[in-house]
This record gives sequence, structure tokens and C-alpha cells, in this order.
Amino acid sequence: LERLGTVAIIGVGLIGGSVGLALRERGLARRVVGIGRDEARLAQAHRLGAVDEATTDLARGVAGAEVVIVGTPVHRIAAAVIAAAGSLSDGGWITDTGTKREIVAAVAQQNRARGLFVGAHPIAGSERQGAAHARADLFEGQTCVLTPTAATPARLVDRARAFWEALGSRVRTMTPEAHDAALARTSHLPHAVAAALAATVPPECLPLAAGAYRDGTRVAAAAGALWTAIFQQNRHALLDALTTFEDHMAQFRRALEADDPDQLLAWWESARTRRAAYDAQHGPDADRNHDQPAAKDDRKFPF
Amino acid sequence: LERLGTVAIIGVGLIGGSVGLALRERGLARRVVGIGRDEARLAQAHRLGAVDEATTDLARGVAGAEVVIVGTPVHRIAAAVIAAAGSLSDGGWITDTGTKREIVAAVAQQNRARGLFVGAHPIAGSERQGAAHARADLFEGQTCVLTPTAATPARLVDRARAFWEALGSRVRTMTPEAHDAALARTSHLPHAVAAALAATVPPECLPLAAGAYRDGTRVAAAAGALWTAIFQQNRHALLDALTTFEDHMAQFRRALEADDPDQLLAWWESARTRRAAYDAQHGPDADRNHDQPAAKDDRKFPF
Repeated sequence: LERLGTVAIIGVGLIGGSVGLALRERGLARRVVGIGRDEARLAQAHRLGAVDEATTDLARGVAGAEVVIVGTPVHRIAAAVIAAAGSLSDGGWITDTGTKREIVAAVAQQNRARGLFVGAHPIAGSERQGAAHARADLFEGQTCVLTPTAATPARLVDRARAFWEALGSRVRTMTPEAHDAALARTSHLPHAVAAALAATVPPECLPLAAGAYRDGTRVAAAAGALWTAIFQQNRHALLDALTTFEDHMAQFRRALEADDPDQLLAWWESARTRRAAYDAQHGPDADRNHDQPAAKDDRKFPF
Repeated sequence: LERLGTVAIIGVGLIGGSVGLALRERGLARRVVGIGRDEARLAQAHRLGAVDEATTDLARGVAGAEVVIVGTPVHRIAAAVIAAAGSLSDGGWITDTGTKREIVAAVAQQNRARGLFVGAHPIAGSERQGAAHARADLFEGQTCVLTPTAATPARLVDRARAFWEALGSRVRTMTPEAHDAALARTSHLPHAVAAALAATVPPECLPLAAGAYRDGTRVAAAAGALWTAIFQQNRHALLDALTTFEDHMAQFRRALEADDPDQLLAWWESARTRRAAYDAQHGPDADRNHDQPAAKDDRKFPF
């Protein structure tokens, strides 16, 4: 990646803030401008070194930007992309960070925006939100999915690939639909299940909770507004994933009601094989600490 | 705890092996004898420093023991307790490490055994099995539940409390039924759910799996035979917990089908509040690394 001029980040929370930290720490951009609706959050992102400048004025913030990254909650991404496209100087292009089909479809409705936009989803994050939990290495070794369409210029796909790779991501290209179907199973369903598990354990049992509870419910600590929007944006694929999950739970119930060790064991082993395949791909300790906030002295701020 | 003479451990896997390591590292016993059915596993436990001696002869192994700890898979605990009671010298007593109601009921059928037994469940473990993953600090700061009955002599309850506290546990006393009802929700259901989640994600989606999948399915890597036995031993309480969980998932499905953000948000927030209560009790980083194998140089073997 050649050094970028101005990069504008709309939405400087966990993801947008991490993009800013990574750009600045790696010296990838001459100037990083943070754009947001909340002055206090912008000031925090600036204080933490995620952006060089901050503004609540989207048009002013994106003017002159070579790249715009939209890191808002998913239900505001499409509108932000379209607004950015209206103010962007020639040569600029736009990428984002969220669930894909609805966003890509909404942007495709808008002539100028669809030719400037490369849909992206860096698969990284945590149950924590806000720039305070951002980290420059959030994307390192993590997959970033690009979802170009027939309307996306090939040179922009190349630029988007180079951009996300420069932040440490392993980039792959998929259709928005394939992306959403996969994420429904790998991320959105696990979030819903974590919440249902958390809801099932009454407070008086919590002193007895150990590792299975702790890890199984971890993401239930995530922000409700963000996840409500994600669930809604991907509800069709998520309902499909939910049906498959319910089938597996129903099989478990039948085996347990039958008190049949062979059936229980066969059920368990087929699931265990799936998880073993993940460990084989990612390594047993893959990403172990990736969703945890960096210790303070691990954060190499550029100042 | 006064220094113990001989301690016998029946079943030297992850839990039994960790008891042995902790006893030896803390100098709590003059001699630790490992008892098992498999010569190779006993030899491994000995090599790792979990026991001073090992034997496949239960009667010989427990003769002269001051304390016997039964750490076998749960479906073999009651038989091992009864067998140990038959060979134990005067003054000796027995504790265990597993799911409670069925075990306590089976031991209560046997005159000699029921007066020598204090049911215990140290709530600690991991998805890994075997003495190779044992660690001297496995019980440190973890809860250990004692489930004495009317037949349990009070002085034995005191000794069992002192024993498990000496290994670093926080001891609490419950009825076997209350223990099993709680563990169904905090541990057994989360294991079943992790497996169902793992089964729901097809192999081609695994490259896109990140933290929510990794943590949500971690315990699906556990051994099927151990978990089949635990599920069966606690099937009534687990079926209850399963019903509650299914109700929460059904609420989620209805909110998603209705595409109703208020309903989704309310559902999420009530779950998030539960998880927040856990974090408030345990600290947000409670037990973070407890289910992971110790780095080799963290293992302070006594030799």
C-alpha cells in the first residue's frame, strides 16, 4: 500500500477507532480524520490517538479524503456511505465494516455511491464497545471479507484489498449473500445463544458458574442496540441458522429423554468433530486473547 | 489442615491428577497413591509428579489411606466409593469430585460407605482431559460444593471442608438436589449448547469464525464419554434447564420473526443484565485463563 493522504473514519468506536490506531501506528496515512455524531466520543478517540482530527460535520470531514471507512452501527452504514459519496472529492472511495446484503443493496440504489463503494467486513471485535477498547492490532491475522458487486470497479476492489491487508487482515471475497449466511452461523447465532444461556441462569446460581458459563455467555455482555440492528439486518439468514440450531437441540433433547448413551455419544461426537476442524484450521489457541482488551502497556500509541 | 498421612486418589485424570499435584506441591500429604484401571495413565500421572506411587489394585491402594478422593468419570464414582469403603482402615474417609444426587443416593444404600463419605464437587476443569492437563492450582479460588446428608458425620464434613480449602477452594455446602439443579444450568446445559452450536456451523464457514464461535463452542471439544455420563446422571435437572433455555430461544425467534427492535432489545437487555451480574460477582476477567493449560514453565512440579 502506498502511503495514503487523508483517511476519514465515520464512527470511531471499537472498530473505527482500531482502524485509526492501526493506520497511525503503521504510518499508513498522512492524516486520519474522525467523524461522528457525539463530541465526547470524538474527543476520546482523539485523546487515545485513534485520529489526528475530529469533526461532527460529515461533508467537511470526508472532503479531500482518499479513503472513507464507515464504522457506524450497521443500520446507519448505508446512509453514511451515500452521504459520504455526495461529498467525496474525485479519486476517493469508500469501504465499511458491517453486515453486508442490506447495506450493499441500499448503496446499489444510489448511482454515485455504488461506483465508489467496496463493501467490507473485518471479522474482529469484542463484547466491549467504544474507542477505549480499540487496538492497533485488532485486525492482525483476522479475516476481512470484501463483497464487491458487478457495479464495483475492479481497481477499487484492488485498493480495498490492499487497504485491509495493510491493517493485517487476510482478505477474501464473497457475495454479500454468502457472507451473511456464514456470519449468521459463525457470529449472529452464537450471540443470540449466549444471551439465551445467560438468561437461563438465575442469579443465585452464579456463584457456581465456571468456565463453560463464562465463555458460553461472554458475548451476552455486548451492547444491545448494536446487536438488535445486526439481528434485524440479517434476520432471514439468522432465522435459517436458528432453525438448524433448534434441530440440533431437539436431537439432544430426544437422546436425553430416551436416556440413551449411544445416541447422546453419537450426537456429541458429531459436534466435537466440527469443533476439532476449527482447532485444526485455527490452532487450538487461535485468537485466544484477541477479544480481550489490551493491557495498557501493550498499547503502542503513536505519541 | 494438619499434614495428612497417605492420600489415595482413584482416577488420576485432569481432576484427580490436579488433586495429587496440589497435595504434593503444598506438602499436604506424606504420600499420595494413585489408583486406576489403566497402567499407562497411572505411569503418566507418576511421571508428571501427581502421585508418589501408583497401583491398579484398589483394595491395596486405599488400605492405610487417611483420605480417599474419587476422581473417576461420574458413572463410576459411586461404585468406587463403595469399593473403597470396604477396604479402608479405621479413621479413613472418602470424598469425590462429581455430579451429586445419583452418587449420594447410591452411596446411601450402603451402610459402611455412607458413614465414611462426604460428597464433593470441585467446580473446576477444562475441555481437556487426562493428567497431562492437570495443574496444581486448578482449584485455587474455585468453588467446591460439599453435599453432606443426615448420614454424614459432622466431623467428616469439617475434615472435607479443611481438605478442599487446603487445595485453595472456596467451600460451600448444599443439598445434592440443589447442587445438581444449579450445575445443570451453569455447566451441563452450556456444554450441550456449545455442542449444538458447533454442529450448526458447516466446515466451509469455519474460516470466518471468530471470538463468538470460538468461546461459544470451546467446551464442545470435551470428551464425549465423560459428558454422556454427566448428562445421564443429571438428566432430570438438565431437562428442566433445557426447557427454560428453549423458552428463551423461542422468545428470540418470535422477536426476530416480528422484526421488532423493541422486543429484540428488551430480550437482549434482560440477558445482558444476568451476565453483568456474573461479572460483578467474579470480576470481568475472573477466571479468564483458568480453563487453559498451564504454560510448561508455569508448572511447579515438586521434583
